[in-house]
Amino acid sequence: MATTKDQIQIGGNIFEQRHGKERVRVGRVWRSGDNRHNFVEWNVSISLLSDCVNAYVSADNSDIVATDTMKNTVYVKAKECKEQVSVEEFAIILAKHFTSFYPQVTTAIVKIVEKPWERISMNGQPHDHGFKLGSEKHTTEVIVQKNGSLGVTSGVVGLSLLKTTQSGFEGFIRDQNTILPETRERMLATEVSASWRYQFKSLSSISNKPLQFTEKYLRVKKVLMDTFFGPPKEGVYSPSVQATLYDMAKAVLGRFPDISSVHLKMPNIHFLPVNLSSKVNPVIVKFEDDVYLPTDEPHGSIEASLSRPLSKM
Amino acid sequence: MATTKDQIQIGGNIFEQRHGKERVRVGRVWRSGDNRHNFVEWNVSISLLSDCVNAYVSADNSDIVATDTMKNTVYVKAKECKEQVSVEEFAIILAKHFTSFYPQVTTAIVKIVEKPWERISMNGQPHDHGFKLGSEKHTTEVIVQKNGSLGVTSGVVGLSLLKTTQSGFEGFIRDQNTILPETRERMLATEVSASWRYQFKSLSSISNKPLQFTEKYLRVKKVLMDTFFGPPKEGVYSPSVQATLYDMAKAVLGRFPDISSVHLKMPNIHFLPVNLSSKVNPVIVKFEDDVYLPTDEPHGSIEASLSRPLSKM
Amino acid sequence: MATTKDQIQIGGNIFEQRHGKERVRVGRVWRSGDNRHNFVEWNVSISLLSDCVNAYVSADNSDIVATDTMKNTVYVKAKECKEQVSVEEFAIILAKHFTSFYPQVTTAIVKIVEKPWERISMNGQPHDHGFKLGSEKHTTEVIVQKNGSLGVTSGVVGLSLLKTTQSGFEGFIRDQNTILPETRERMLATEVSASWRYQFKSLSSISNKPLQFTEKYLRVKKVLMDTFFGPPKEGVYSPSVQATLYDMAKAVLGRFPDISSVHLKMPNIHFLPVNLSSKVNPVIVKFEDDVYLPTDEPHGSIEASLSRPLSKM
Amino acid sequence: MATTKDQIQIGGNIFEQRHGKERVRVGRVWRSGDNRHNFVEWNVSISLLSDCVNAYVSADNSDIVATDTMKNTVYVKAKECKEQVSVEEFAIILAKHFTSFYPQVTTAIVKIVEKPWERISMNGQPHDHGFKLGSEKHTTEVIVQKNGSLGVTSGVVGLSLLKTTQSGFEGFIRDQNTILPETRERMLATEVSASWRYQFKSLSSISNKPLQFTEKYLRVKKVLMDTFFGPPKEGVYSPSVQATLYDMAKAVLGRFPDISSVHLKMPNIHFLPVNLSSKVNPVIVKFEDDVYLPTDEPHGSIEASLSRPLSKM
Repeated sequence: MATTKDQIQIGGNIFEQRHGKERVRVGRVWRSGDNRHNFVEWNVSISLLSDCVNAYVSADNSDIVATDTMKNTVYVKAKECKEQVSVEEFAIILAKHFTSFYPQVTTAIVKIVEKPWERISMNGQPHDHGFKLGSEKHTTEVIVQKNGSLGVTSGVVGLSLLKTTQSGFEGFIRDQNTILPETRERMLATEVSASWRYQFKSLSSISNKPLQFTEKYLRVKKVLMDTFFGPPKEGVYSPSVQATLYDMAKAVLGRFPDISSVHLKMPNIHFLPVNLSSKVNPVIVKFEDDVYLPTDEPHGSIEASLSRPLSKM
Repeated sequence: MATTKDQIQIGGNIFEQRHGKERVRVGRVWRSGDNRHNFVEWNVSISLLSDCVNAYVSADNSDIVATDTMKNTVYVKAKECKEQVSVEEFAIILAKHFTSFYPQVTTAIVKIVEKPWERISMNGQPHDHGFKLGSEKHTTEVIVQKNGSLGVTSGVVGLSLLKTTQSGFEGFIRDQNTILPETRERMLATEVSASWRYQFKSLSSISNKPLQFTEKYLRVKKVLMDTFFGPPKEGVYSPSVQATLYDMAKAVLGRFPDISSVHLKMPNIHFLPVNLSSKVNPVIVKFEDDVYLPTDEPHGSIEASLSRPLSKM
Repeated sequence: MATTKDQIQIGGNIFEQRHGKERVRVGRVWRSGDNRHNFVEWNVSISLLSDCVNAYVSADNSDIVATDTMKNTVYVKAKECKEQVSVEEFAIILAKHFTSFYPQVTTAIVKIVEKPWERISMNGQPHDHGFKLGSEKHTTEVIVQKNGSLGVTSGVVGLSLLKTTQSGFEGFIRDQNTILPETRERMLATEVSASWRYQFKSLSSISNKPLQFTEKYLRVKKVLMDTFFGPPKEGVYSPSVQATLYDMAKAVLGRFPDISSVHLKMPNIHFLPVNLSSKVNPVIVKFEDDVYLPTDEPHGSIEASLSRPLSKM
Repeated sequence: MATTKDQIQIGGNIFEQRHGKERVRVGRVWRSGDNRHNFVEWNVSISLLSDCVNAYVSADNSDIVATDTMKNTVYVKAKECKEQVSVEEFAIILAKHFTSFYPQVTTAIVKIVEKPWERISMNGQPHDHGFKLGSEKHTTEVIVQKNGSLGVTSGVVGLSLLKTTQSGFEGFIRDQNTILPETRERMLATEVSASWRYQFKSLSSISNKPLQFTEKYLRVKKVLMDTFFGPPKEGVYSPSVQATLYDMAKAVLGRFPDISSVHLKMPNIHFLPVNLSSKVNPVIVKFEDDVYLPTDEPHGSIEASLSRPLSKM
């Protein structure tokens, strides 16, 4: 509960609260004149900071926005969007509504995950109304305060990447519990969770260029992937997940001046070399950079954020 | 436990058993001369029918293939594959090993799910060693008997498809519990699970054309999708999930003479029209083929199989 | 699609189909005169075999029971149950309705999973209306045919059991891929899925003793657990999962004459001995039946069924 | 990444990082003289804040504790625990090791989730070595800094509670998007996530009373449940999730002087009244506090923390 402060004193103790609605699902179809349909499916979470302490301490709900009403509002606002909007724009519309409409609400936090429906192509031609589910997901978190201050974070989750070479790990601390050998040749696999915050500080500083956030999302994702993999023929050597993560973060800040900070979480998902032996058969399988045991657990956890000065996430 | 019979009598009762190893994970990299790496990740399940009843009734394990040994064998066989093989070929190699090597084993059932790692492209150029996780998964189930009889089933799971129009449902039975209105305009969404069985009846009838099953998998998937969606501009009208499913099954049998039967499971995943009203506000949201509530549960379940005569799955 | 046959010929091919509704959730509260509430939460799946081929081949839905109607029927029948019923009884009520009400429906298959809500006790006193979620789940599968024939299967899933000793595995086949050492002391852990079929063959042979199936479910579960663990002080030695599974199945048939067959699936969930060493430190951790690595994958899979003659599942 | 600060400046930007190992699983058996075994299964996550920026910016791993070494240390420390320890004690042992052993490590954060294995009873007698998996889970998060400062948080997750009456929701804000009717009779269901922080501020202030944290965990859980449900016969009326949550938090602080703050997250998991009607049948099902539709999504989200002054979580 760290993002925004909303503490009060009750009976000598400090009290902090929020309430909202999670997992509100909405699908929206836009039908343009030429029969081409656009479609999105969103999973919306709303959280409100508001002056409603009497609900907690004296059974008085008169300052409570019912979470059912929050859910209805998602559908009302989806209906009102006559043109396609990005997931960030929709989150801003919702957050703005809650902070401006209800006197009690001081801050609204809206998170949305977009389901990765992708328009299919048939023999190279895009289909007018056919979609197939892809893999990684576009996310956003928007925070709006009653005074109009705004924070917009975009992100991607579930971006699973793997390279079969150009990765190593050497020169780390060796102590009495260290077993891991040093190597210059290993599999590198991760599931990237990235989020980046835009420079905008207030509702009034947002331009209304349509789908600007969606376009930026695609460009950031491409920079992350290009940096992770390196050129198609030779790739790029990764001396550690740490170093690769830092290069990716630096590339994002270097490329996009309107992004003020970026956070990356990149678990090191291990593909273990397979070596098998027994007393009677000293070499059942000998690893030669060919046969691996993929694992989910345990995994290394590496995360970091890089921020421009005065703009920390 | 229906696929294959292996019953015996014990103490006046009928006994049937199998044992094996599930969730054996293996990754395999093939490095060709030109630096281009091929890579697969498989999740293997092995189940053996064998004469080992003494393990059950008299604590005598002398006819038991340890499941740990089955797991090791997966890695041994992966190592032995010097050239890339399809998931079906690998399942055949394993099943053949268990039925031919162990006198006790009468039948081996091997199921594999391939993780959808896809080679990435960078600015149109395929990457030599970079992969990204996609969505739907290629599966196989292979059954080999000691006499050399063979059944090969291929499949796809997690193929989530959606079309925003060209779907309706009319003229169904109306009784005292029927509420659903008839419609000629609705969203159609499903997650296809398909499996198809090849004509091959014995190990000797399999050609050794490399990656023939992988190529066939891609072609069957394309026929399924093309039939589901119809042409890119106008699509094709679906009068029911049943009718669309049947068309898809028929298209597969019509197109691939070496497939003897096909089974399709296509849940009807509902996108509910959003209409909201209250006493004081009779029209909060009015549905106009625009705002939907996506749901996971409950869902319709429609499944069917179509088989050539004498070839039922 | 093996349970019941419903094949027809279309265009020279053999066609088999079913449709239904899955994941229909219902909660039911019964309030008795003394303020004591009884409560259940069920997840219902219905599958109908019916004569409705025209829906598949000629876009004619006139023989189709809409899956939405099936869902509504669940609520109608739940409402009609004025006294508490077991999950098996409710499945019979539903299946009977579909086969008797609709001329087209030849067979109804109803599966239900009960969520394990347990009445809480407070200082030893049962609470009138307070419930807490437990672990393993009571299941049922009921098949009713139009002619009144009936099959009732009850089961339990998610019954995770573990014993820290009195388990071994010795004398199994040793070959070139065998690494596993023999042992008389290991952890034994499994997640039991059990199902058992009752002798009843027709709707008319069911007695109407209230909650008889619920009581039987608790008794079967106790027999399974008592056989798995053995007496509280010394336990019972398990020479293999196979032998323990067989003892459990035999105990169920031996104890309950009205059960005609029992099926057990007992994955061997491995707790690996932890031994760690490195070149500089030959003994980092030495296993002494104390420190284990619990795993989910891979796991052994052992399953078997034991049936009275002429009563196979 | 809010818990502890560890920022540095690189190339004009602000950089913050941590690395560790997640999902390290360990099982530990303690065998006492009288044949009674004690057993725990833990899932451990370790995260280290350390001076190792050169790994990120200049491919120099010489200050990196390999995550594989962290994993090994879990097993080393589990081995060293000759007597049973609580999950909190084990987390403290680990965190203390990392901050005291490695000069680079300034802070260690250790989180553990205990799998709810419960000793079984057979006819009232506890079993010496038999365990069954229960439902809700005991958790901990421990933060140790190099200077010896300590924070210990304990918690419970997955505590699903439900009461069939004594719950209502009235007098909330009604606006143009409000549909929810007011009620004094509804189902109340939630899945409690609770965490509470102890007063201890340093490693030296921890007493070494064995299993004190485990005993406290059980007592806090009982206070939470007793407050939620009220007395066994009449229960206690809940005017909102908010009010019930606050009463639970207040009860914990009131009862346990050594707890300085408590955080509760209690989603409102809706059981919707079932009313069904159609044009031809205006009353298919009429709700009379009897038939409910249980849902997972959307759900209300209510969370709050209550802290003694100067002790906020």
